[in-house]
Amino acid sequence: MDAERRPAAAYAAVETFDGDATSPAGFLAAGVHCGIKRKRPDLALLASETPATAAALFTTNRVQAAPVVVSREAVAGGRARAIVVNSGNANACTGPGGLRDAREMVRLTAEVLGLRREEVLVASTGIIGVPLPMQAVREGIPRAAGALSRDGGEAAAEAIRTTDRYPKAAAARLEVEGKRVTVGGMAKGAGMIHPQLATTLGFLTTDAAVAPPVLRAALREAVADSFNAITVDGDTSTNDAVFLLANGRAGAPPIEGGAELVRFTEALSRVAGRLARLVVADGEGATRTVEIAVEGARDEGEARRAAFRVANSLLVKTALHGGEPNWGRIMAALGSAGVEMREERTRVRIGDVLVFRDGEGVPEALGPAAAALEGSEARIRIALGIGQGCATVWTCDLGEEYVRINGSYAT
Amino acid sequence: MDAERRPAAAYAAVETFDGDATSPAGFLAAGVHCGIKRKRPDLALLASETPATAAALFTTNRVQAAPVVVSREAVAGGRARAIVVNSGNANACTGPGGLRDAREMVRLTAEVLGLRREEVLVASTGIIGVPLPMQAVREGIPRAAGALSRDGGEAAAEAIRTTDRYPKAAAARLEVEGKRVTVGGMAKGAGMIHPQLATTLGFLTTDAAVAPPVLRAALREAVADSFNAITVDGDTSTNDAVFLLANGRAGAPPIEGGAELVRFTEALSRVAGRLARLVVADGEGATRTVEIAVEGARDEGEARRAAFRVANSLLVKTALHGGEPNWGRIMAALGSAGVEMREERTRVRIGDVLVFRDGEGVPEALGPAAAALEGSEARIRIALGIGQGCATVWTCDLGEEYVRINGSYAT
Repeated sequence: MDAERRPAAAYAAVETFDGDATSPAGFLAAGVHCGIKRKRPDLALLASETPATAAALFTTNRVQAAPVVVSREAVAGGRARAIVVNSGNANACTGPGGLRDAREMVRLTAEVLGLRREEVLVASTGIIGVPLPMQAVREGIPRAAGALSRDGGEAAAEAIRTTDRYPKAAAARLEVEGKRVTVGGMAKGAGMIHPQLATTLGFLTTDAAVAPPVLRAALREAVADSFNAITVDGDTSTNDAVFLLANGRAGAPPIEGGAELVRFTEALSRVAGRLARLVVADGEGATRTVEIAVEGARDEGEARRAAFRVANSLLVKTALHGGEPNWGRIMAALGSAGVEMREERTRVRIGDVLVFRDGEGVPEALGPAAAALEGSEARIRIALGIGQGCATVWTCDLGEEYVRINGSYAT
Repeated sequence: MDAERRPAAAYAAVETFDGDATSPAGFLAAGVHCGIKRKRPDLALLASETPATAAALFTTNRVQAAPVVVSREAVAGGRARAIVVNSGNANACTGPGGLRDAREMVRLTAEVLGLRREEVLVASTGIIGVPLPMQAVREGIPRAAGALSRDGGEAAAEAIRTTDRYPKAAAARLEVEGKRVTVGGMAKGAGMIHPQLATTLGFLTTDAAVAPPVLRAALREAVADSFNAITVDGDTSTNDAVFLLANGRAGAPPIEGGAELVRFTEALSRVAGRLARLVVADGEGATRTVEIAVEGARDEGEARRAAFRVANSLLVKTALHGGEPNWGRIMAALGSAGVEMREERTRVRIGDVLVFRDGEGVPEALGPAAAALEGSEARIRIALGIGQGCATVWTCDLGEEYVRINGSYAT
């Protein structure tokens, strides 16, 4: 997704395929139902058969869930072998008891897998402010460990769902000095998605060998244009995190820089990008994915701000839901984005149809623009005509279903 | 609404009553149907029988509608006698033709009322980007002028509606050196309401005598805690404006400062506050008005930012719609507001029920908190425990109806 900055050769050398977090060699996963939710799977385990390096990015929300606090500490060392994840309960705003529970999840997982506690990370997603039903978790962890398998990626992706309509997984492969290296991953959405560092829960795995500092840099780059370039509702969660484990089981030499690192980062970006777009496509109540590209802004930061302002405008999102090419709302959003812009220099395209230029609309464009909004994927392109800054973000429309889902989440 | 800063005596001396923009002496108004909308009234005139001073505040959106550009110029002189307003069409993003149309509305109104062009202000509200049907407007203005009457305030309030479910009017009176002075007004909502300087369209009138600089200062103060303290959807319109005309017809001496100015500003604030709350109560799809008060923030600015972040969180607004006391979403919104806060110091009350303190929820509070959300007015109080900053804003819940209204506005 970071096309401009990476050489074309990196693209050709990376191949995406239908895979998941267990596609890379040496990764096991499982998903079980332990009783946090009434019926659906709610506990996932992801583990490497051998030691692995680790990197993670966490929410910038000032209110941080207990598992975020615990995992942030643990991942600082740059190594981890397993991640335990529950859905149905965020273990956020749960006080000292919540921290105890998150640490107990780590301890139980370490014990049952024969690992040191420092090798286990933890993540939670679901309702805020309700203590975890630890009896269920205690019973579930050994069972999940027993279910770990080389093709458990799908079951794990299933078990981390909250309001997601479908599980989200992706994979890509590349060659590193003649050896095939694989990147896999899973993610969950679908509301409270807005980028501030990392958003949503994402779990990436690779059988490449990568030292912690290099792994961190690659993750940061891959997330910048994927998980950090999507928004569903502008809300930032207390639990957002993206994890990456690298176990070196492909047998390729360590990736330290140069063309290998470029290709590896490309593969990571493709998997993260695919997951991020799946999250947006599955936005609560969404019927349509919308790519919003801004160019000609004063700088990249202003381009991003303008794109996100449009992406988060309720009036734009509801118009997109209704399939209406209401570019006036796009202009109003741009005007309130706090970026340099001038009405008479701005051009707006819906799909390929120019709908606004020279300070006014193109009347005959409305029919074709409405047609450009008919599919499940739409594109809005905005040229500000000020400078060279550009940015692309992904969002979705906002339908009645969003309100229905979020008006009765806890009940 | 600015209770803390104004002495209690000012309250007692001001009386609100059911009135409108023609309640002050010497004001005439009319509302007619000219054909911008299919059936409903769409053209309003507001005029003072005698010369008046004038002040106005306009949207901070970088994209400014033609009537905003024209009225901003005209009001700079501090005097005006009439305002012509159309609904159904914003005359925004309409290029040089739009500016010509706005100026023609001014010219026609001035001609038919025998005024100079500089004495006429203009405002528009409705869909963006569609040229005004000037044939209808040209026919309508003389007819509206013919219909001007001393009790035309209601008809005018009716004619400025867009998606408003009901017309919005208010009035208050006070004594200035033994003379009764009246303040009246009308406003329209109901989507795209978010404060950046002035929001929505508001028209205030008074028969007090007030020189332009004093009038401007009083308007700014009255708007700060009324039109600038409300939000429906976080969107800022291209057309927002609040106007104030003062014609001195009460016969009281000019208000220049001291206790008179305090009382006058209080009356203005009450009328503006009542109108602003009517706008929120009529937010598109709203079933509930919510007051969000933040105290203990580092400063007033941070208190405002925190309050607006909560007020604009889609997840909070949909939970409020569902009547769910989901304080976790309030905490998540606070954490992402970019203000100084600490989970363990934060206290959240829904109605009078303490739902969060010491870093965790109060489990037994959920039932009573849900009960506190049953009525048409709800209150959320947040104490951050950091400093002395406080702020109160008003918003509404977000229901499916918002999506329905805004998904098919243009059609």
